[in-house]
Amino acid sequence: MKQMSLGLSMRYHGYHVAAWRHPEYRPGCNLDFSSYRAIAQAAEAEKLDMIFFADGLAVRGVDRPEGAMSHDMRNAELEPLTLLAAIAGATRHIGLVATASTTYNEPYHIARKFASIDHISGGRAGWNVVTSWSDQEAQNFNKTANLPREERYARAAEFVDVTKGLWASWEEDAFVRNKETGEFYDPEKVHVLDHEGAFFKVRGPLNSAPTPQGHPVIVQAGASAQGRDIAARHADIVYTVAQTVEEARDFYADLKSRAAELGREEPPLIMPGITLYVGATQAEAQAKFDELQALIDPLAGLNILYNFVGDLSGYPLDGPVPQDLPHSNISIAKGLLQKAKDEDLTIRQLYETVAAGFTGRYMIGTPESIVDDMQLWFETGACDGFNICPPLLPQGMEDLSRFILPELRSRGLFRTDYPGTTLRETLGRKRPVFGAARTLAEA
Amino acid sequence: MKQMSLGLSMRYHGYHVAAWRHPEYRPGCNLDFSSYRAIAQAAEAEKLDMIFFADGLAVRGVDRPEGAMSHDMRNAELEPLTLLAAIAGATRHIGLVATASTTYNEPYHIARKFASIDHISGGRAGWNVVTSWSDQEAQNFNKTANLPREERYARAAEFVDVTKGLWASWEEDAFVRNKETGEFYDPEKVHVLDHEGAFFKVRGPLNSAPTPQGHPVIVQAGASAQGRDIAARHADIVYTVAQTVEEARDFYADLKSRAAELGREEPPLIMPGITLYVGATQAEAQAKFDELQALIDPLAGLNILYNFVGDLSGYPLDGPVPQDLPHSNISIAKGLLQKAKDEDLTIRQLYETVAAGFTGRYMIGTPESIVDDMQLWFETGACDGFNICPPLLPQGMEDLSRFILPELRSRGLFRTDYPGTTLRETLGRKRPVFGAARTLAEA
Repeated sequence: MKQMSLGLSMRYHGYHVAAWRHPEYRPGCNLDFSSYRAIAQAAEAEKLDMIFFADGLAVRGVDRPEGAMSHDMRNAELEPLTLLAAIAGATRHIGLVATASTTYNEPYHIARKFASIDHISGGRAGWNVVTSWSDQEAQNFNKTANLPREERYARAAEFVDVTKGLWASWEEDAFVRNKETGEFYDPEKVHVLDHEGAFFKVRGPLNSAPTPQGHPVIVQAGASAQGRDIAARHADIVYTVAQTVEEARDFYADLKSRAAELGREEPPLIMPGITLYVGATQAEAQAKFDELQALIDPLAGLNILYNFVGDLSGYPLDGPVPQDLPHSNISIAKGLLQKAKDEDLTIRQLYETVAAGFTGRYMIGTPESIVDDMQLWFETGACDGFNICPPLLPQGMEDLSRFILPELRSRGLFRTDYPGTTLRETLGRKRPVFGAARTLAEA
Repeated sequence: MKQMSLGLSMRYHGYHVAAWRHPEYRPGCNLDFSSYRAIAQAAEAEKLDMIFFADGLAVRGVDRPEGAMSHDMRNAELEPLTLLAAIAGATRHIGLVATASTTYNEPYHIARKFASIDHISGGRAGWNVVTSWSDQEAQNFNKTANLPREERYARAAEFVDVTKGLWASWEEDAFVRNKETGEFYDPEKVHVLDHEGAFFKVRGPLNSAPTPQGHPVIVQAGASAQGRDIAARHADIVYTVAQTVEEARDFYADLKSRAAELGREEPPLIMPGITLYVGATQAEAQAKFDELQALIDPLAGLNILYNFVGDLSGYPLDGPVPQDLPHSNISIAKGLLQKAKDEDLTIRQLYETVAAGFTGRYMIGTPESIVDDMQLWFETGACDGFNICPPLLPQGMEDLSRFILPELRSRGLFRTDYPGTTLRETLGRKRPVFGAARTLAEA
């Protein structure tokens, strides 16, 4: 029987904007490695496929509603690749996925760092490919504004090609390490890339060996046509923010068919984000939800909306969401404005909705009702698993252990042990086969 | 009584070019995290100040003596920042220093990653600032050739300024995390940099908090005038490759006086690299040395010389080192050619010398004779400690434990325990004080 993939998103120690004001949230845990390690170990004890860290390259503090950023906890954090590497050394089975931007990095660094984490972890690294969206990030990297979407995605597509090319630098058996003859590697089995494209000029080879997974797993999260194209070509996993099962099924069918058209034997696994408020009874779940929602500071609420639709501090909080806002650059914004219109939401109601689910879907319920819903999605072609974004950590992981995983397992929907040692094996995916490339001598 | 600082260089699991052919060298250990972890833990058990990873951003395989690279073990490795982070999670006291290039990185990434390692390790991170020197690295980063020295160092100087500026983004008490009022940080205590220079345009603030050390320790290794200037301004530690005590005293005096002229209260600590071949008797030490030297493949020997003086494969191995080679870009090359001339060395003898010490100094002796020499350097103004580059690991660490450290301790020259928890405390250095900067509101 087919089983789900499940990931745990750990950024900021909780996805609810008011998580840090919760009585049980320990101040400073978002900068405390030992706390992340403990949660990762708990997730591994429950055999989750992976943990995941989203990322951004700026404190987004400019042109905000005044004072808003100072009421938001999302400003200082650990850098996810160093954090993943540290967790790698303290775990044995769980997959380790982090975001790295193709707009503000170089392929050689990214290929090398994720390869290194794959070596350190014994084959558990995954790279979530993003293009970054804010001007604040551009301003930390020698620019004044973000690249236009077309250019960003063109760069991303080339970036992923180059990175995969670098990962193919050495054949699996290149390192002979023959102490007698003195030959360390077979020069016929190391390859240069000699890439010259619109954005990058990279010779190679990469100064890293083939990794335990062949190369790290690739994750993609953009829902735009260009994002889907990269996902269909390269991704092992696609994160989505689908709100309805119909929408999710459409996306699922589209992406799987795009991958099939490209001749991929193994289409990407599709994992929507979900935020769960769960209790033994519906009332208990609702109380958990209400407690966090009551802690949302209006400034923090306006601040999260700002990311998607701009500054709404000039409008009444309990009035309608204006629809004549400047067209936003990201798909999430369109979805939000549509939702506000369809459901006749006030500004406060809109930010409460976003805070509750952090742009993904959220559910408030008992183990039975939530797993009913997850099972429906999983068994009717809407997803291959879920990326769980808990409102609060470590409580969200404890809720999974106590409520959700036993129910999933009683229905045979989730594993009871890891099938192998690498993330690729956990996901049930084959080791990649590298194509032929030129040797250094031929270059 | 003043005591030495001691670091352990761990790159490639041994600095001797033939280390990997030694009967005790375990094939593949250079890609095995658990092996580095074990050595780091052994170094920590012996209270060493720090471990150190040098780095480069290419497989340097082009235009070499034919086949040379394939006889050299220095081609595939773990990426040092991910490796350090993983070791951070498995140690508690030892300092963690790695190289990162200012020529092929961006300050925001470097500030952030080292800050993150400082958080993860509880205050033990150090950044070794290098400018990179090979065209092969340039070719992995959108260029055809390395930048000219002047430009490289100008960029490095600006890079370090920006990085330190980013590390000062948040005042120590900026994060109030007031659950009652909803204020997460005090907006008066976060600062933008708004740097615009010849090489970088970086707004800030950094999305990381002040680290346990204030900011990570800064290490510098260039011996040129420009390198010394950066070291005098910013470095906590300077690595050198001095060969004679006179040369080392000159450098020491020069650097300390440059730092004093700049008004620095705490001049950098100066730590020459040394490679030790040590045994209970001189004969035992010599046998260790001879065993490794006998394993040097001529192709590997020519390959190490290539880095400094170019391709010598057209000359007889047992003939003189030609002196009319194209002028090299790095100070080490000049030293080597001078040495070959002064000591009338053949090509084979020159590469044997380099292989034995990897451009630093090497000593073959008993604990007494080696520690006599170390003490002389330490007590006559030639250094503040040593960066030990063992020919072979973990054997080189075992030799330190068995032979060198007991002798140093019997003379009161090395600590018996860590004085605190951070690398800065281990080095006996004060926490940096950040200057005033503009707030976001003022920018």
